[in-house]
Amino acid sequence: MKEIGIGLLGFGTVGAGVVEGLQKNSPLLARRLGVRLALRRVADLDLESDRGVKVDRAIMTRDAREAIHDPAVDVVVELIGGTDVARELIRETIEAGKPVVTANKALLAKHGAELFDLAFRKSVPLGFEASVGGGIPIIRALREGLVADRISAIFGILNGTCNYILTRMENENLAFDDALKAAQKEGYAEANPALDIDGHDTAHKAVVLATLAFGGAVPLDRVHVQGIRGMAKADMDYALGLGYRVKLLAVIRNRGGSLDIRVHPALLPLDHVLSSVSGVYNAILIESDLAGKTLYYGRGAGRLPTASAVISDISTIARAIAFGGMRSLPSLPMTSRKSAPFVNAEESESRFYLRMSLQDRPGVLGKLATILGRHNVSIASVLQQEERRGRHVPVVILTHRAAETDVRRAVALIDRLRFVGNRTVSLRIED
Amino acid sequence: MKEIGIGLLGFGTVGAGVVEGLQKNSPLLARRLGVRLALRRVADLDLESDRGVKVDRAIMTRDAREAIHDPAVDVVVELIGGTDVARELIRETIEAGKPVVTANKALLAKHGAELFDLAFRKSVPLGFEASVGGGIPIIRALREGLVADRISAIFGILNGTCNYILTRMENENLAFDDALKAAQKEGYAEANPALDIDGHDTAHKAVVLATLAFGGAVPLDRVHVQGIRGMAKADMDYALGLGYRVKLLAVIRNRGGSLDIRVHPALLPLDHVLSSVSGVYNAILIESDLAGKTLYYGRGAGRLPTASAVISDISTIARAIAFGGMRSLPSLPMTSRKSAPFVNAEESESRFYLRMSLQDRPGVLGKLATILGRHNVSIASVLQQEERRGRHVPVVILTHRAAETDVRRAVALIDRLRFVGNRTVSLRIED
Repeated sequence: MKEIGIGLLGFGTVGAGVVEGLQKNSPLLARRLGVRLALRRVADLDLESDRGVKVDRAIMTRDAREAIHDPAVDVVVELIGGTDVARELIRETIEAGKPVVTANKALLAKHGAELFDLAFRKSVPLGFEASVGGGIPIIRALREGLVADRISAIFGILNGTCNYILTRMENENLAFDDALKAAQKEGYAEANPALDIDGHDTAHKAVVLATLAFGGAVPLDRVHVQGIRGMAKADMDYALGLGYRVKLLAVIRNRGGSLDIRVHPALLPLDHVLSSVSGVYNAILIESDLAGKTLYYGRGAGRLPTASAVISDISTIARAIAFGGMRSLPSLPMTSRKSAPFVNAEESESRFYLRMSLQDRPGVLGKLATILGRHNVSIASVLQQEERRGRHVPVVILTHRAAETDVRRAVALIDRLRFVGNRTVSLRIED
Repeated sequence: MKEIGIGLLGFGTVGAGVVEGLQKNSPLLARRLGVRLALRRVADLDLESDRGVKVDRAIMTRDAREAIHDPAVDVVVELIGGTDVARELIRETIEAGKPVVTANKALLAKHGAELFDLAFRKSVPLGFEASVGGGIPIIRALREGLVADRISAIFGILNGTCNYILTRMENENLAFDDALKAAQKEGYAEANPALDIDGHDTAHKAVVLATLAFGGAVPLDRVHVQGIRGMAKADMDYALGLGYRVKLLAVIRNRGGSLDIRVHPALLPLDHVLSSVSGVYNAILIESDLAGKTLYYGRGAGRLPTASAVISDISTIARAIAFGGMRSLPSLPMTSRKSAPFVNAEESESRFYLRMSLQDRPGVLGKLATILGRHNVSIASVLQQEERRGRHVPVVILTHRAAETDVRRAVALIDRLRFVGNRTVSLRIED
């Protein structure tokens, strides 16, 4: 049986998971693939720490380039993270004509166009199953399973940290800061959680999915991003009372040929298939013209789920190396380096949840309604509960579909009124 | 751009869907694949009926062999159904060295071992994405996405007809017969519904999934099959009152190296991810050692969802033909023609739902409990409601985990007692 050599760059959490997966299921993999996967090189600056897996010291090196150019290495796995060194190492690997597997969504979101283009020109496969959805084989599903389908929309819960925080806030009645601390204690959030809670990680994954679905370059800076930092428990409670749950969503839509890509907290009806996705789980709902609605659900992160995805990419490439067919692997996501056009904010319509802070006196609600109406925002329902604690009472309004810019302008006017207290909270509703 | 010729055998509902999909998304497919898919031959006994799609009469034939052996045909798509003619035509295609794509789960469940073996010997790919889960790319997910994973269990709602019937019974308070009639009227059930409602279609799909997951031949006759025919609405109501929903499940388990494959109606807790799958939707939950739990959900049947899966198989093969690499396509499911060992019924444990029909008089429940206890079946909860209509009252018992044979023996004894009316209804609980 042929052996295919693997060079691992980055021996952190996921790297150790890949080694564990390869060791644990080695005979099973060989039987399924008809090829043996052999770990030939592991590069990391830290050669000392115990990762809980055994690796022969002789194959370890501090020099990533040594691993890349070792003739015994047929496939290079980049698990270093970051967008500078990783980018250089991947470029160097592709230039050397060797296939690459990466889990690096930030890198793909920022430099995907360049790297996919290089890989295409060099006829070298670039695997990235692990970049979105951890152990969920979503890249395969979207690129190969739905290859015949025109994708109209993708809705994703793509960040386990945020979903874990929102779930704990809801289930244990925690404030955002306390749920974040709990997530950090459990190892589900980084000491610096900005990448997750400010929505950037979700945006990176949204860019990868949109690139696959629509086949053009998707500039990261065209994605509207809003995270869950400071999410008020009160809004989750009001939403729940109205039959909605708040989730951090990536929403990718094809509106008549123009892309609308957004990351933000959104209200989902309780019977929506995504609203029951809790804890660190991820899920992706795809709407397409032939298959209809399909949903993919699983652990969005963690060492072994991510390792499962990495090894699946290695396996496909290993068969192509062993039996021929590198050029027939699924084509790269970019069928065009030109970016698809994006919708203007004016065209982006939605229903909205608005929580206003108002003085409880006659005529106030009427004034609001007038301002909203003048901006073509019509009210679907109002929730105002008696509350005697402060000078202001919360008033929750659900609107009918309205243009985002109209809602923004109306809210800006409303927030300047004398009888309005704190700034209005505005969240989208996805039905 | 290269063109790959398709020969279609069977121009029924799904066949017409495939033609529609190929026509509708032709430029998109070409852009994504780098290859053009060209319909070159359509074979069907009926050349007259209008299928709602336009096909050049010149490429139509009544002779499937003409399509198979046409030099312009590179890939043959079998959508005839049945297990006799289809088997012969697929054998003939493979013998001729041409790749085959099929949606025929009955054929694969009965003659998969033979066909996969032949395809392997001839180095010819055999695509069957459409055989399970309609538009859900479950074959790819299991075979390629989870290639690194040891699968411990698969739970599937695999038959849209049954799930539609159960959903209507529950939502509209219909008896089984009325829900079946409704399904037939909507086109979701055949005039002869036996294949669906007796569980055989689900069993065929379970065999395909088990073959992929465990890599050995899975004899269909080793699968325990019980359908939903005659399912009593009362049992669904009692189950719901106790926090469970009844679904027709395929359950595939690896119990320490032995297979346990069953198809039967089962009680699922309301918070179980599969219990909210309603109507004609299918879902497959996979438990594996690296990825953990992953779930795949979508339309399990229908012309366009099935066409999406068929065209995805054609596409993979088309790239392999155009760019080389036929031998590197994912290997066939059988790594061994030897069947995996199966568990004995004695070893198969579960919790059970039992509905007994008892005379309402003192001491009766005690006698039941004694008989169950003597067979190592212990009671978790009892539900007995006052009911004065007949001589007998229903008593519902949920058991703790017990061996299936113990439960069967106990129930057989109980059903012979003088104070027992109708035969006891026994359903498994999957937690």
